[in-house]
Parts: sequence; structure tokens; C-alpha cells
Amino acid sequence: MDATARKTVLRMFTYGLYAVTAKDGEGGHGIAANWLSQVSFEPPMLAIAVEGDSHMRRLLDMHGAFVVNVLESGQRELAGQLGKTFAKHPEKMRDILWKPSPLTASPILTVALGWVECRVREELPTGDHILYTAEVVEAGVLREGVALTLKETGFRYFG
Amino acid sequence: MDATARKTVLRMFTYGLYAVTAKDGEGGHGIAANWLSQVSFEPPMLAIAVEGDSHMRRLLDMHGAFVVNVLESGQRELAGQLGKTFAKHPEKMRDILWKPSPLTASPILTVALGWVECRVREELPTGDHILYTAEVVEAGVLREGVALTLKETGFRYFG
Repeated sequence: MDATARKTVLRMFTYGLYAVTAKDGEGGHGIAANWLSQVSFEPPMLAIAVEGDSHMRRLLDMHGAFVVNVLESGQRELAGQLGKTFAKHPEKMRDILWKPSPLTASPILTVALGWVECRVREELPTGDHILYTAEVVEAGVLREGVALTLKETGFRYFG
Repeated sequence: MDATARKTVLRMFTYGLYAVTAKDGEGGHGIAANWLSQVSFEPPMLAIAVEGDSHMRRLLDMHGAFVVNVLESGQRELAGQLGKTFAKHPEKMRDILWKPSPLTASPILTVALGWVECRVREELPTGDHILYTAEVVEAGVLREGVALTLKETGFRYFG
């Protein structure tokens, strides 16, 4: 395979950049995630790929629930903060305001445009990530705005 | 669940819009697809959700291979053509130029920016769609350009 071509084409793909959060003990944990898509209308379902050796993976396996927070254009710094590794930055959520979601106590970020609360259905190992499928069980709109995209941030998580 | 809020938030999500193609007898079949993401770096893998009762689903189950063609900004009309249902428009690929991909003879569209050829690994039913995971086995860059997004087209396939 032409690995350079592969990277070039995969970097043409279009992604949003979301704050994906889960309950973590009495607190909450969050990551920046872009490998995420709706995968069913009825029932409404999403799929998300999470790093196989990550703290988020352990929390999803433990609690089976997460929230996808839609970030707003301009929130690059917040996305970057959430994109830090848990191992090196275990307190990365400390200065981020949130409240627990209604059904699963996953963090809803105060500054998000909106959120969907999801319960994990199945997980499938995909190479160096775990692909979770999940059903949307609750949702809320916080305000209007334009969603953040991976392209806007200049971050790279593809290829 | 607040169904209106759910639709509103899911419609904030960001997607590309791709031409996904597969071998179909001596010819080729194509759809417009946006529920698609990379899901692993090593090995390079994608996941794509395809309608459960679609012709593409039958082809993926039969051949286990597809190509993702990255469309260019401005190719809304082509995406709309590929978005037509196979049942009502079985000849929708007739006027679209393509050549077979090197390993699996899936259509590479001449006007695409680039393409990745994929072999299906696993499939998982997700509500009204089937989620396929696949390994990228070949790729090619055709030219430079800005990728088409679902937002640009104004099409809706989410919520």
C-alpha cells in the first residue's frame, strides 16, 4: 500500500470535534473525540472509537454510558485541554464547569451547544481503538451556535 | 426523551459526504454516505453505517470490499445523484466515469480528490443500519482540493 497516499486521503476526511464525557467516581472525565458518527435513526444510535488503552475506555466498560457535548466554533482551547492524556493530566477537568446528566451522571459541559446522553450497546475492538455503539437516551439544547470542527482547530487525529 | 432536542443536537454534528462504491456484477454501484469515520491508526481502519435494506448492504456482504471516494467542494450534484435509491434509480451510475480499484474492482470515481480501498472486517447491526468495520488496504491521491461536507450540500442525513 502507498502509505503516504493513505495518510493524505484519510486527512481529507471531515470531522467534528466533541467533548465526550463519562462519570468517574464522584467526579467526571472528558476527552476530545472526533471518530464519532450517528449510525441509526431508529433507535437513535451513535458509534465512537476510543483509544484501547485509555482511561475513558475503562470508564465506558465500567459504567456503560457517556455524553457527547457539541462544542462551539472558537472553543479550540477547551478541546485542546480535553485532548490531553489522562495519565499526564489527571486533573484536566478541574477548571471545566459541568453538571451531571439526568440518567447516568455523565458531565454536561456548561459551555457546550448541546448534548446527547448515550448508553453503550456493544463494543468491538478495531485495531488500536475500541469501537462502541450506543443508544441516545436523552438530549438537551443549551444554546444556538456553529459547531467546532477538527479542521478549524488544526488538530490532527486521522491518517 | 426530548425528541426535538435530540434531533436538534444530532443535526449539529459535522460530517463529510463521500461516494462509497462497490463492485456490482460486471459494473459498479455507488451511494452517498456520511456516517463514516476512521476508527484505528494501526492497522488503518474505517467504520461505515449502511442502510440495512439497501443494495449496497447486499454487495458488501457479497464482496466484502468497498472504496471511499473523497468528493470535492462543489460536487453537490454528483452526491445528490449517488444519493438516489437503487430501487428507483438502478442506472444512477451510468453517466459517472470510474475505473476499477486495484485489489477489489470497486469503482474509483474519476472526479474524486482521492480514494481508499477497504476490505470488510466485521459487521454489526445498529438499529436500521449495519455498521461495517473495514481495513484500508490501498489508497490513491488524484488531485488537491477542498473536500465536500454535508453542511455545504444542505442535505440532511442525521437527527
